[in-house]
Amino acid sequence: MTLIKSIEFKDGKLYLIDQRKLPEKLSMFECKDHKDVEFAIKDMVVRGAPAIGVVGAYGIVLAAENFLDLSKEEFISKVKESAAILGNARPTAVNLMWAVKRMMNVLEANKDKTNSEICEILLNEAKNIEREDLETNKAIARYGNEIVPKGATILTHCNTGALATAGYGTALGVIREAHYTGKNIRVFADETRPRLQGARLTAWELVQERIPAKLIPDSVAPVLIRDGEIDIIIVGADRIALNGDTANKIGTFMLSQIAKDFNVPFYIAAPISTIDFETKSGKDIIIEERDATEVTHINGVRIAPEGIDVYNPAFDVTPHENITGIITEKGIIRPPYLENLSRLRDGKK
Amino acid sequence: MTLIKSIEFKDGKLYLIDQRKLPEKLSMFECKDHKDVEFAIKDMVVRGAPAIGVVGAYGIVLAAENFLDLSKEEFISKVKESAAILGNARPTAVNLMWAVKRMMNVLEANKDKTNSEICEILLNEAKNIEREDLETNKAIARYGNEIVPKGATILTHCNTGALATAGYGTALGVIREAHYTGKNIRVFADETRPRLQGARLTAWELVQERIPAKLIPDSVAPVLIRDGEIDIIIVGADRIALNGDTANKIGTFMLSQIAKDFNVPFYIAAPISTIDFETKSGKDIIIEERDATEVTHINGVRIAPEGIDVYNPAFDVTPHENITGIITEKGIIRPPYLENLSRLRDGKK
Repeated sequence: MTLIKSIEFKDGKLYLIDQRKLPEKLSMFECKDHKDVEFAIKDMVVRGAPAIGVVGAYGIVLAAENFLDLSKEEFISKVKESAAILGNARPTAVNLMWAVKRMMNVLEANKDKTNSEICEILLNEAKNIEREDLETNKAIARYGNEIVPKGATILTHCNTGALATAGYGTALGVIREAHYTGKNIRVFADETRPRLQGARLTAWELVQERIPAKLIPDSVAPVLIRDGEIDIIIVGADRIALNGDTANKIGTFMLSQIAKDFNVPFYIAAPISTIDFETKSGKDIIIEERDATEVTHINGVRIAPEGIDVYNPAFDVTPHENITGIITEKGIIRPPYLENLSRLRDGKK
Repeated sequence: MTLIKSIEFKDGKLYLIDQRKLPEKLSMFECKDHKDVEFAIKDMVVRGAPAIGVVGAYGIVLAAENFLDLSKEEFISKVKESAAILGNARPTAVNLMWAVKRMMNVLEANKDKTNSEICEILLNEAKNIEREDLETNKAIARYGNEIVPKGATILTHCNTGALATAGYGTALGVIREAHYTGKNIRVFADETRPRLQGARLTAWELVQERIPAKLIPDSVAPVLIRDGEIDIIIVGADRIALNGDTANKIGTFMLSQIAKDFNVPFYIAAPISTIDFETKSGKDIIIEERDATEVTHINGVRIAPEGIDVYNPAFDVTPHENITGIITEKGIIRPPYLENLSRLRDGKK
């Protein structure tokens, strides 16, 4: 087992594995204030819905520390302003907004304390969010492992590993658990264009863990699914609507649709913080469109001609009908999703 | 209209646009003998099923010219040997074998002539193959244009343009024709991992022609198809079996399957020389597996970690049930393909 720690808060600074530089270089990106954190999220120094939730929370801690000497009123106002900026750094993943809201609730509940006390309370809350995310992932991994057959070939997309979370991972956490428990699994990892998180990050984690794996171009996966080469597909999520529709990395819809056509089980693995109980269906999820250069350039080198337009949505929505189950830290949620997710929301589970 | 001439035979040498260097650099690759041609095909200096047929034919001409001074017997034997090498340079596209066979038939029919006369006859045959391919493409374009609605949004995959043929193109030829005839079409071009022929070559041709177009990562196409953004899909082919099953660039199957699910017409555009009447179904088509570095490196820079395995098939097979029609120079062939392609083979059309 390899410990990959992608997020570390130390001596009043936040250190992140710079995921833009992997796998060539393992280096840390230092954040001194909330603006560094905003940049790190926007530029994808750190990515992955659960990871950016944790990092957003620490961003608020950095803001609080930097504004410590202001008057109480200004301090509260500046921290709130920073939280709003951080919450909007990326629009699709709900975990970021969830973490920011949780931090703001703590701020609200403690606003009569001194700036210094508030700082400490915020730091504790961010640490809680981080620790809970790790525990959550381990629970997801255990539940998910129950449905992984011995000797299974698992297909995954994008990166949902230690790098995408506080540690262990969601979909890749299930894969880790299956590997550690001796199930003799093997993995096909989609390279995941345009940012190549599969090729750069998932392949890197798989090599570190010595899990038997093959990297494939995204368009190879449909053929493997059709030809019976894949036993189970497990991917992560950036936002799950109340009816089970799920926004995840572009390419996820394609996998789910082909999987449905050829009867291959298709699972989402995500913490409950990824479920947006306020969003009724996938139609209401904002899909982030990213810069054309992600498609026209690789490693700063132009691959497409000047003058060509680009359409580059970062995510797509998989309809709930295509999802076999959602693996969470409280167990596997199965259809009908509207009913079962509503019950979860109402705490009746 | 822009004239892109990717293949030119001049002064006893064959000049090819070096497609490995596009779109950054437009440069010619010089072939002095059949070994240069073999390299050009294997390393994808030139690619596209019809183009490698034409180039293979010229490769035989170069061999004949280089062996001109040998005894008749040795000459014939060396030319045949070179033809066999060229015919096997890439395994999936049938046009290459078709062109080599055609050249060998001419050799056989004229083997009593002098070496010099045979050389001239072979050169004429190669020129015929080139000229016929261009005419064929223009006929494909006209037939294909009949089924393109005004204002259509067309999705295409890989490169099937002037670069992939003797000129004009197959699927991209239909797109050219629709554009020239004022249909106000627009195009989505898949980037086509791993070799990025869509990003590098199709986008380049589209920019040159000023056809309104957007480049997309391959996994974006399924979402556009689902969401009703695509009116028609037209792609090329590397080999069509007698039952209509079609081998084409990896990613084609995915498009055809999603298109079937969402009732979007899916067409193949290819010359009749791409139909392999000897191959009963897609099961019998050899799928070329290419080097891992096509996936792990881009422009010579490593993007995936050392130690990761790769699966990199160059093509996939689209089952005939997913194909709305096959646009050829003799018109559009529709299901039932086994019946209609058999009739074409038997010359009863």
